[in-house]
Amino acid sequence: MKTIRVGIAGAAGYTGCELIRLLETHPRAEIAWLMTGETHRGKLVGEVFPQLRGVRDEVFLALDPAAAAGVDLVFLAMPHGLAAALIGPFRRAGARVIDLSADCRLKDPAVYRQWYDREHDAPALLAEAVYGLPELYRKHLAGAGLVANPGCYPTVSILCLAPLLAEGQVSTDAIVIDAKSGVSGAGRGLTPGTHYAECNEDLLAYKPAGHRHMPEIEQELSLLAGEAVSVCFVPHLVPMTRGMMATVYCRPTGRFRVPGLQELYEDFYRNEPFVHVLGPGELPRTKAVCGTNRCLIAVRYDPRSGTILVLGVIDNLVKGASGQAVQNMNVVFGFPETEGLPAVALYP
Amino acid sequence: MKTIRVGIAGAAGYTGCELIRLLETHPRAEIAWLMTGETHRGKLVGEVFPQLRGVRDEVFLALDPAAAAGVDLVFLAMPHGLAAALIGPFRRAGARVIDLSADCRLKDPAVYRQWYDREHDAPALLAEAVYGLPELYRKHLAGAGLVANPGCYPTVSILCLAPLLAEGQVSTDAIVIDAKSGVSGAGRGLTPGTHYAECNEDLLAYKPAGHRHMPEIEQELSLLAGEAVSVCFVPHLVPMTRGMMATVYCRPTGRFRVPGLQELYEDFYRNEPFVHVLGPGELPRTKAVCGTNRCLIAVRYDPRSGTILVLGVIDNLVKGASGQAVQNMNVVFGFPETEGLPAVALYP
Amino acid sequence: MKTIRVGIAGAAGYTGCELIRLLETHPRAEIAWLMTGETHRGKLVGEVFPQLRGVRDEVFLALDPAAAAGVDLVFLAMPHGLAAALIGPFRRAGARVIDLSADCRLKDPAVYRQWYDREHDAPALLAEAVYGLPELYRKHLAGAGLVANPGCYPTVSILCLAPLLAEGQVSTDAIVIDAKSGVSGAGRGLTPGTHYAECNEDLLAYKPAGHRHMPEIEQELSLLAGEAVSVCFVPHLVPMTRGMMATVYCRPTGRFRVPGLQELYEDFYRNEPFVHVLGPGELPRTKAVCGTNRCLIAVRYDPRSGTILVLGVIDNLVKGASGQAVQNMNVVFGFPETEGLPAVALYP
Amino acid sequence: MKTIRVGIAGAAGYTGCELIRLLETHPRAEIAWLMTGETHRGKLVGEVFPQLRGVRDEVFLALDPAAAAGVDLVFLAMPHGLAAALIGPFRRAGARVIDLSADCRLKDPAVYRQWYDREHDAPALLAEAVYGLPELYRKHLAGAGLVANPGCYPTVSILCLAPLLAEGQVSTDAIVIDAKSGVSGAGRGLTPGTHYAECNEDLLAYKPAGHRHMPEIEQELSLLAGEAVSVCFVPHLVPMTRGMMATVYCRPTGRFRVPGLQELYEDFYRNEPFVHVLGPGELPRTKAVCGTNRCLIAVRYDPRSGTILVLGVIDNLVKGASGQAVQNMNVVFGFPETEGLPAVALYP
Repeated sequence: MKTIRVGIAGAAGYTGCELIRLLETHPRAEIAWLMTGETHRGKLVGEVFPQLRGVRDEVFLALDPAAAAGVDLVFLAMPHGLAAALIGPFRRAGARVIDLSADCRLKDPAVYRQWYDREHDAPALLAEAVYGLPELYRKHLAGAGLVANPGCYPTVSILCLAPLLAEGQVSTDAIVIDAKSGVSGAGRGLTPGTHYAECNEDLLAYKPAGHRHMPEIEQELSLLAGEAVSVCFVPHLVPMTRGMMATVYCRPTGRFRVPGLQELYEDFYRNEPFVHVLGPGELPRTKAVCGTNRCLIAVRYDPRSGTILVLGVIDNLVKGASGQAVQNMNVVFGFPETEGLPAVALYP
Repeated sequence: MKTIRVGIAGAAGYTGCELIRLLETHPRAEIAWLMTGETHRGKLVGEVFPQLRGVRDEVFLALDPAAAAGVDLVFLAMPHGLAAALIGPFRRAGARVIDLSADCRLKDPAVYRQWYDREHDAPALLAEAVYGLPELYRKHLAGAGLVANPGCYPTVSILCLAPLLAEGQVSTDAIVIDAKSGVSGAGRGLTPGTHYAECNEDLLAYKPAGHRHMPEIEQELSLLAGEAVSVCFVPHLVPMTRGMMATVYCRPTGRFRVPGLQELYEDFYRNEPFVHVLGPGELPRTKAVCGTNRCLIAVRYDPRSGTILVLGVIDNLVKGASGQAVQNMNVVFGFPETEGLPAVALYP
Repeated sequence: MKTIRVGIAGAAGYTGCELIRLLETHPRAEIAWLMTGETHRGKLVGEVFPQLRGVRDEVFLALDPAAAAGVDLVFLAMPHGLAAALIGPFRRAGARVIDLSADCRLKDPAVYRQWYDREHDAPALLAEAVYGLPELYRKHLAGAGLVANPGCYPTVSILCLAPLLAEGQVSTDAIVIDAKSGVSGAGRGLTPGTHYAECNEDLLAYKPAGHRHMPEIEQELSLLAGEAVSVCFVPHLVPMTRGMMATVYCRPTGRFRVPGLQELYEDFYRNEPFVHVLGPGELPRTKAVCGTNRCLIAVRYDPRSGTILVLGVIDNLVKGASGQAVQNMNVVFGFPETEGLPAVALYP
Repeated sequence: MKTIRVGIAGAAGYTGCELIRLLETHPRAEIAWLMTGETHRGKLVGEVFPQLRGVRDEVFLALDPAAAAGVDLVFLAMPHGLAAALIGPFRRAGARVIDLSADCRLKDPAVYRQWYDREHDAPALLAEAVYGLPELYRKHLAGAGLVANPGCYPTVSILCLAPLLAEGQVSTDAIVIDAKSGVSGAGRGLTPGTHYAECNEDLLAYKPAGHRHMPEIEQELSLLAGEAVSVCFVPHLVPMTRGMMATVYCRPTGRFRVPGLQELYEDFYRNEPFVHVLGPGELPRTKAVCGTNRCLIAVRYDPRSGTILVLGVIDNLVKGASGQAVQNMNVVFGFPETEGLPAVALYP
């Protein structure tokens, strides 16, 4: 029943191994090869990932776009900057590409330059790439050749705000997104900030109003609103491995009606397999989505302060990265959208 | 050199044992007795608190205000509701009282009734009690007979906002306080939400815009501003034992001047021994205050979204509870304010 | 393709929800009903388990053996004592039973009485039940009507020791099993010892040489050895949610040969789908099996102290409980043994 | 009242900052300077250690033994290998030295070479250094010029076994030490094994029967026993920041008498301020010693397996390193032994 062959480039990081976990049980996609950068190439997969001993007894190959000839799809799980240079070669070798880096997400090369401190290597890709948030771009994704898989913070932030902005119900200049992420979001590279004894039992904000995911969020929210949206986005690092939460504060416009708020969200996401709007008495928890591609959202209006609150959670490595990439693969190839994506979280 | 004798009523909870830790090495205060409610009375202290074996080899006494005759000060570390009924008896027996519960914090009995779902047992206390935030009420605290020790969330929230509100630099109707707390803030009582396997590796918001600390925050901010202040306050539970952070978002009034922001905070807290304003390149971490009475604050202006950001951290059990109570004791009795309060965090 | 219908009695605990997670994607078994004790019956599944909102939109039923008429198999995930009384009724109603409690594991009612402080309710079951460790009893399990699913500590301990004892290579009176468990092993019931602020950042031994899993371990090791085996078993509680490790120390008999040690283990487990013997340079980590039914084992001889070391890890809720129960179901019904059991751990 | 001046060389690691925390409130010792290796020299202390902002507003100096002229004592908190080369210069400049590295702990240069893979730089130091376990060597430490501060694992292991070995009550060839450590024991250097997402929620053994602390343990146990002792020592990494536990298994000789076991330990440690023998119904927890210099020990005899069990806990950074170094300073200079060492753990 396996109908496509896929390769993973950059397979030795956390999004890489999460792709392997999901694709191992995907009924339609077969992993053809795993490539990595210098550090791990030539090593046995099980040496780099103890959980894959006895599951994938092969070595990580060196990066080689020519290998794309044998696959239908390449997942690029490389750092930004490195990814852009590989997309062209992989495409020309005949594969579709789902890029998990930030290299194809921003439409405007000037914005990319401003936030990533470098010229984009292949600005033409920016026009071609489809932003891989199926809840907004499902039709464009079907059959797409290049998908820009969204960032983790943008995924949860945009899903929290889309219904309100699409309906013009909130001010576009007074949106606060207070986001919290588990430590795996920082990747597998060693840094003082992710050293266990430093970040365990610690909580901090980082890059307040200066994180690279902010322009990505604003780009998509502006498209939804039909006008320029600016947000104040402050990410925090929380001492847990997985999980991401956005607590969104915004202010109503004249079009907002309190009684319709819950219904607005339920209608917007009624047919979405992975976005679940909680009832009025429920609040989301990251543990409820651990290991799954789900996004749980609750929405409230606080009359005392005149604030609309939206609370959303995802697993940063699944709906925030590799699970969404698999969802995009399903959409691109016309597979059932939930295929290979577990519905039940690992709990507790 | 021990000059006063103190008692702790409600000593078997986390704020109780934190008071014991701090007072054990306080050069001027001697612990005369430890009282508790039904559950633990008559038990050896070391049976309830393994860290106190060999340190305090006594039993927890039953609650008995008559015992106050022998002490200069009683720390009340009881649940709200129970505390109010004990204050009068302890006072009449001759002791000053520092009440760590919420029973004396709100000035208005109607607000108490609204948020605590009960009539206040002794509303006269509300007028008498001095709100125990020394940074704002030091003069009133000197010699006070009854101190209402602030809540943990109010402590960090008020310290974050005081300079701006005192100077009228921010709008009083658009303040967002996104707060995060370690699990010890929920106390020692067993609940599903504090069961290890439930809250470990989990992140959630609770009581959004409905937490009892909100009216306490608004009361104090309104006094600072000289007008009614409403806030949108959303607390979150973070999987760590100690630590609390407030991320505050507010919007400037015409009196706000960007270049003066850092100086405003440094001036406001220049002589405060426990509030430390971080430099422009620094951000606070809860781990940097663990076990201490310090509050670290950083402030920023985000011109893109027109938002003033204030980030503050405390140890919820120290500056957020027992350490602040000891600081209040020092002020009430005219001791050096930092006496008995460790300056260096347990790190890592 | 669903060929059998199963019920879960005691579905509101951690082994219950883990059964649900695994069976939801099992290709041959369909969950017919979920029953619980008093506390949760009548509640929506999603109210008790947030991760199941939108997945299983039903209520927990009251315990009712008559319901077994409609199912092929009942998983009993009840506390010991309660389980024994339900087995008969469920069996008579026509279902096979896999009992996750301790009620059918010990062969000798006297040993049960000694360790569980009660008379066994149905001692005849002890003779009938097949001990559900497929690696040892696969043949007896095929078609069995009643399976005693092993305890978590016994599972990893027995798998660590079986090759050595079956070959008579270690002394039967000098075996030390130093075991470590994540906190989920203590279940979902609230206790001071599993209160987050108490057990987070804490490590302790409990019931040293007095845990109820010890006689279960000794029973099985004695059967393997063909003589009475006594062990010194000391469990520890480790601040993590899932994961279990046994570090086993034993002393060689004259039949032991150092060079054959690795081969002994590899041969013993060569055809086992879930037991993976690591190479000489590898050591097991609990994270490598999180969410899976795998057991990783490493073995060493230390010539300096004359000790044979065996190190094994499992996920206490999967191979240590619900995963093994599903594996047993597969064996009982003749399904492929790995069906429905994920091979790749959630990592990191 | 400050009567001596001390310097800390290697102050930018975890044992360094723990020394600073303890010495900041020590009534008799004043920190004269803080030196570090290349990485951090010239940096502000508060830049490297956020908890010291506003406490020590100085820079880390480059390593310079000449500076020792101005101090009475140097704490060497350097990596092994680097430490040995600095001891001579610091001594000649007039300071006593407490060396927290492993460079002076082993008496025999050949054993050092075997376990540390290098020739010792200054073997004469090995003869001169006093092993800094005050419970065993208090008399030799008084006035000593060079103290070899013990390793963390040896501290807890030796304290657990000393009473039994000193009395010849256990076999010297069948001792198992199963040890568990929090992650801070691995230091502040970045490694894959201490990356948060790798070691959080993970448990593993490392260097089984091959850790460098084993010969140190055996040396001291052999001295106690008056004959060669060999141990099987297996350390484990536990997902918590601080805390260390040893679970010791040994076998009685003919001199062992069950009824005297508890008394043996109580007598041995009766006058020790930091070693606390728990009662027969108590078991140690690492959380009960967090931040303190205490060691809690419980002892049991298991008649079923004929095993004597000893369980001990310490804070690896305090009694296992910097606290013990301060205790040694107190002994060397004739200060009260508990001076500057907090008695009450940070709990919870």
